[in-house]
Amino acid sequence: MDMVAVLKTNLDDNAVTALVGRIESLGLAPHVSRTEYRTVITTSGGEGNPELRDQVAQLEGVDRVLPIAQPYRLASREFAESDTILDIKGIRVGGPHVNVIAGPCAIESRELLFEVAAAVKQAGASILRGGAFKPRTSPYSFQGKGRDGLIMLQEAGQAFNMPTITEVTDTRDVEVVYKYADMFQVGARNMQNYNLLLEVGKTDKPVFIKRGLAASTTELLMSAEYVLSQGNHRVILCERGIRTFADDVRFTLDVSAVPVLQERSHLPVFVDPSHAAGRRDLVPPLALAAVAAGAAGVIVEVHSCPDKALCDGPQALLPTKFEGMMNQLRQIAEVVGHRVTRWGEEGEHVRPAATGGGWRS
Amino acid sequence: MDMVAVLKTNLDDNAVTALVGRIESLGLAPHVSRTEYRTVITTSGGEGNPELRDQVAQLEGVDRVLPIAQPYRLASREFAESDTILDIKGIRVGGPHVNVIAGPCAIESRELLFEVAAAVKQAGASILRGGAFKPRTSPYSFQGKGRDGLIMLQEAGQAFNMPTITEVTDTRDVEVVYKYADMFQVGARNMQNYNLLLEVGKTDKPVFIKRGLAASTTELLMSAEYVLSQGNHRVILCERGIRTFADDVRFTLDVSAVPVLQERSHLPVFVDPSHAAGRRDLVPPLALAAVAAGAAGVIVEVHSCPDKALCDGPQALLPTKFEGMMNQLRQIAEVVGHRVTRWGEEGEHVRPAATGGGWRS
Amino acid sequence: MDMVAVLKTNLDDNAVTALVGRIESLGLAPHVSRTEYRTVITTSGGEGNPELRDQVAQLEGVDRVLPIAQPYRLASREFAESDTILDIKGIRVGGPHVNVIAGPCAIESRELLFEVAAAVKQAGASILRGGAFKPRTSPYSFQGKGRDGLIMLQEAGQAFNMPTITEVTDTRDVEVVYKYADMFQVGARNMQNYNLLLEVGKTDKPVFIKRGLAASTTELLMSAEYVLSQGNHRVILCERGIRTFADDVRFTLDVSAVPVLQERSHLPVFVDPSHAAGRRDLVPPLALAAVAAGAAGVIVEVHSCPDKALCDGPQALLPTKFEGMMNQLRQIAEVVGHRVTRWGEEGEHVRPAATGGGWRS
Amino acid sequence: MDMVAVLKTNLDDNAVTALVGRIESLGLAPHVSRTEYRTVITTSGGEGNPELRDQVAQLEGVDRVLPIAQPYRLASREFAESDTILDIKGIRVGGPHVNVIAGPCAIESRELLFEVAAAVKQAGASILRGGAFKPRTSPYSFQGKGRDGLIMLQEAGQAFNMPTITEVTDTRDVEVVYKYADMFQVGARNMQNYNLLLEVGKTDKPVFIKRGLAASTTELLMSAEYVLSQGNHRVILCERGIRTFADDVRFTLDVSAVPVLQERSHLPVFVDPSHAAGRRDLVPPLALAAVAAGAAGVIVEVHSCPDKALCDGPQALLPTKFEGMMNQLRQIAEVVGHRVTRWGEEGEHVRPAATGGGWRS
Repeated sequence: MDMVAVLKTNLDDNAVTALVGRIESLGLAPHVSRTEYRTVITTSGGEGNPELRDQVAQLEGVDRVLPIAQPYRLASREFAESDTILDIKGIRVGGPHVNVIAGPCAIESRELLFEVAAAVKQAGASILRGGAFKPRTSPYSFQGKGRDGLIMLQEAGQAFNMPTITEVTDTRDVEVVYKYADMFQVGARNMQNYNLLLEVGKTDKPVFIKRGLAASTTELLMSAEYVLSQGNHRVILCERGIRTFADDVRFTLDVSAVPVLQERSHLPVFVDPSHAAGRRDLVPPLALAAVAAGAAGVIVEVHSCPDKALCDGPQALLPTKFEGMMNQLRQIAEVVGHRVTRWGEEGEHVRPAATGGGWRS
Repeated sequence: MDMVAVLKTNLDDNAVTALVGRIESLGLAPHVSRTEYRTVITTSGGEGNPELRDQVAQLEGVDRVLPIAQPYRLASREFAESDTILDIKGIRVGGPHVNVIAGPCAIESRELLFEVAAAVKQAGASILRGGAFKPRTSPYSFQGKGRDGLIMLQEAGQAFNMPTITEVTDTRDVEVVYKYADMFQVGARNMQNYNLLLEVGKTDKPVFIKRGLAASTTELLMSAEYVLSQGNHRVILCERGIRTFADDVRFTLDVSAVPVLQERSHLPVFVDPSHAAGRRDLVPPLALAAVAAGAAGVIVEVHSCPDKALCDGPQALLPTKFEGMMNQLRQIAEVVGHRVTRWGEEGEHVRPAATGGGWRS
Repeated sequence: MDMVAVLKTNLDDNAVTALVGRIESLGLAPHVSRTEYRTVITTSGGEGNPELRDQVAQLEGVDRVLPIAQPYRLASREFAESDTILDIKGIRVGGPHVNVIAGPCAIESRELLFEVAAAVKQAGASILRGGAFKPRTSPYSFQGKGRDGLIMLQEAGQAFNMPTITEVTDTRDVEVVYKYADMFQVGARNMQNYNLLLEVGKTDKPVFIKRGLAASTTELLMSAEYVLSQGNHRVILCERGIRTFADDVRFTLDVSAVPVLQERSHLPVFVDPSHAAGRRDLVPPLALAAVAAGAAGVIVEVHSCPDKALCDGPQALLPTKFEGMMNQLRQIAEVVGHRVTRWGEEGEHVRPAATGGGWRS
Repeated sequence: MDMVAVLKTNLDDNAVTALVGRIESLGLAPHVSRTEYRTVITTSGGEGNPELRDQVAQLEGVDRVLPIAQPYRLASREFAESDTILDIKGIRVGGPHVNVIAGPCAIESRELLFEVAAAVKQAGASILRGGAFKPRTSPYSFQGKGRDGLIMLQEAGQAFNMPTITEVTDTRDVEVVYKYADMFQVGARNMQNYNLLLEVGKTDKPVFIKRGLAASTTELLMSAEYVLSQGNHRVILCERGIRTFADDVRFTLDVSAVPVLQERSHLPVFVDPSHAAGRRDLVPPLALAAVAAGAAGVIVEVHSCPDKALCDGPQALLPTKFEGMMNQLRQIAEVVGHRVTRWGEEGEHVRPAATGGGWRS
């Protein structure tokens, strides 16, 4: 891992020479530069040993270490210069394609799910969301319908010809979610559940990773790297609000993360305005802002009767509001040179879904 | 100030009665409610004495106090239900009008200022910015040209027929800034410099207040209240990024503050993408996001030779990039039912500037 | 869940009456209070249905809902007024007992572990830590020795007569960790891995839960509630630094969380200065500050050769520094009326370890 | 300003040579190093021109710039290796001396001030605080007694033989505060009111600077640099809580800032537990934590009748509680090798106050 070690101010030449020797003995190639106030040692080598940074930082005479290469490889723009465009059952995700993922927060009943799916498909959503395993702050809250919910989601996806996405929260559930859903969602609270990332990384289905409440963009990319390192190259990133002192909304949507992540990575970047805001009236302005800033899509909660929702009702849009938002989204996408996916159009829905050799092949 | 006092769990009836008596003796009207686990006392009265909240919070037996009314009046939506639309030398600011304030960070020379002013006017900016008093983190940095800079700014404003805005950082400078500029800017670092707010509140020129790096939207509205309370009703709010753990950009643009402030206040809400990002490549996506979210305008730094700028060069747009951004801004404003101000059009530039009775009349 | 609904300002009497009816139809008992500017409705009932808060918040005419009871029960001071004192293999944890948990970050070899264990026992640590499953930001970092590490830890615990603690990161590993270690550690990144909390909640071994980087104290107590709700009442809380804009150290130690958690909960509250600081020179001052603020203990990383550590070397104390810190800790504990556990003293090590009916009894 | 410029990955040798030329033309001495993945250019020179960093950052081919020297000089440990110990009217502040500044938040009446001064002197405070100019969030709150309050403070200081400290919030008030008080306090909201810093920097009285709610420690040291650069070398730093997502207390006390500031600067570092906590019950544990972490003192609000205080009553300690805290503070100071100043002891109160040549000499 390439780095710059800034030395302490009081070192004489012998001390610097000794330090160079110690760095070499760690297997790194050091190179000394001197400025007016400081001596710095630039190092090369040590590929694949992230521990070396800490080890250099602790050497006698080193003040601090500045990294000069990113710790991720497969997720980086250096690895793939052009945008990754995924094909998810014929839907193209990434690059100029803007996709809207919509559906209820939790799958509560077959009727409700089908009603919402029909409405969001009609308004222009291209992927159907619905939660079967719900991570809830309180052990006394509704925890989701589990496998029964997954089956309903699969049926709705087939009925409306939409790929489906659902959250997986436990390594033990990866197999059942793989069986019924088209995409894995790894939620913000599990962004650094590394065993879970490794497990979904062994499959061939797309993994949609939400940024943790306090995760840096680098950490989000490192979580993507966990999945990518297992051979699953179908990863989507999602900004969903970070925790700050601002308490007007549930989380502060970090809209600048969209262009920042796009600069550093080739992976598609989505935004979740529903969880960021926690209030349905703010979902449309934040969704429009996300697409104006260049996002590859948004994931939005829609509920036909939100005041009876078993989960996160206050942030769910009514279908009519969702339709209005979609109309504005389409226009804004075009202003920034993007295009919201439409069903049935030539060139938008042509290839069959990738049918890999199955799971853990 | 209306509030709800939540009592401690272990109080008997006598203790509650005693507490009611103490609250009455503070001049408040108490009203007791009991829930399964808690007793609460709702209070009325005490208008104009914000200290009462702390005094109730300290009474024996009170666990905590929840405010149920906002601490600001004149800045609130309750005070003025419809959007305030300011007339600044014929330019309408607020409501559906989207205005772009542009110019160099600091006024460095007459030539540069005129060059940038010509370019931003041509591209569609309606108000000219330029700093003469610069608050800088380092005492060794360029601190601005002071009065000479103000004179140049006035000349440029007259030459290009644009109202001007500049920052004021000291109560002793309010008079000279009033003389030469059309609008006061109170910067993020002075948002709670209350003496400065009181002083500009005694004038009749618009005050553009930037949110502090760690200020809540309520505190921003309280700073507006300081100006409004002195009789100056021409206040504009500006979100410019908050300080969070996210370190990819200088400050995290809190785009959700735009709809939140608009819900709570009748005052126009602008966004400063330049200071939020600190990097010019992020300015256009953040500006577009701001207008998509409903902002009444943006304030943007433009420099014709940013790598020689004496201040904040890395965030200044080149004139050509600014023009491209303006074209997209106009379209996005229309998608959300707004309209970027254009010069010379009927209905956009009709009224003469308000000519008040002067300063501290 | 008891709450106060603050109504919108423009409601007439009929609207309030209608709202009261809707609240009653949700199964809650409403009680109306009027202040000068606002009407509020206090509600009782709805025990065990946390969704009701969101449902009330969405009712037509409700501006916002303020909770007046905490969402946790078993973790609260109301549930158990006096401090919980755990007996962990004869060591008392909580109340006036201050315990120091020490050991290497990761278990790297039997030799190193025994060397460090001997040193920390000698200096006064009462519980031995060591990581076998390491959650690492990078997939390319050392991930721990797994089951082999657990066996070494068990042997060291037996050799030095110290209870042991190790991190568990996957529901699939709960059984093996249960077999070899005396306490489960749930790390900051898994604080809201609810399936993991449920699984350790089904055992009878103590669970040490670290606060997430962006978790509120309420959320930490809700995570404790997950464990407690499964019947495992042996929970310890740990503050380990939160993520803020301050970047001098890895995380900002929130020392005020110690008295805040102790006021709200009966559970012991520890502090982890090593992970907060990320630098060994700051570990002693932060550890002393924690005990001065009343913490029930600290968890500290010690390494006899930290510049060769495979994990988090820069924050590991040398055994000699650890000993110096212990001497100061003992004195500070006494100033605040507490006492650092010493081995072999009467009254400190009397009861045999609780021997429950085994796992998932 | 010494720095390391990390270049973009795709540069060929000609591009690097061109870049070296451009850096030289800025007056800097460049030195090229190459690692496996990156080329970096270390630069020297450019002393006294902080703009150069931005200018290098913008050069074609530069990815980012890493500073390798701190931007402050006079405030740094490099400038003065040993702790600065101030003599304030015979009281020694800094180094091993721990001083407690105490008094009411605001000066409300002569009687109250004298009552509190007598109590805190008796309990062991060495410096008397009291606010005459109060910066308040609300324009409708009590704003302080101004000059009348300063006169009362001076009288109390003389009566009890204690140096006095009071806040100054406006450049126009520096003269009157200088006349009546012994130390200037610059509050958190004015930490970056640079004109105010320059003005107090022209005097010869000590300046106590509180860290802003969102200020980094580097920014706090830069504010100290503003004062020092004007020739006033008597500066004290104060950590008083930062704004984070944690909302249990008003501000999160960043206790690690104490050792961090002490490592980087020779100036004394105090802590204000009262404003951090906002609740009196948390003041003693936070004060003890601060002294355990090595602080040179604390500043605490004390009020003999806090429930009638006109300002910040909930955080004021009663005199009896203050006395108990002082007893613990003395013991904790000794554990860490410090000593709380006591009046009348040999060696603690020997030198007369520095009597400079007056103001703006």
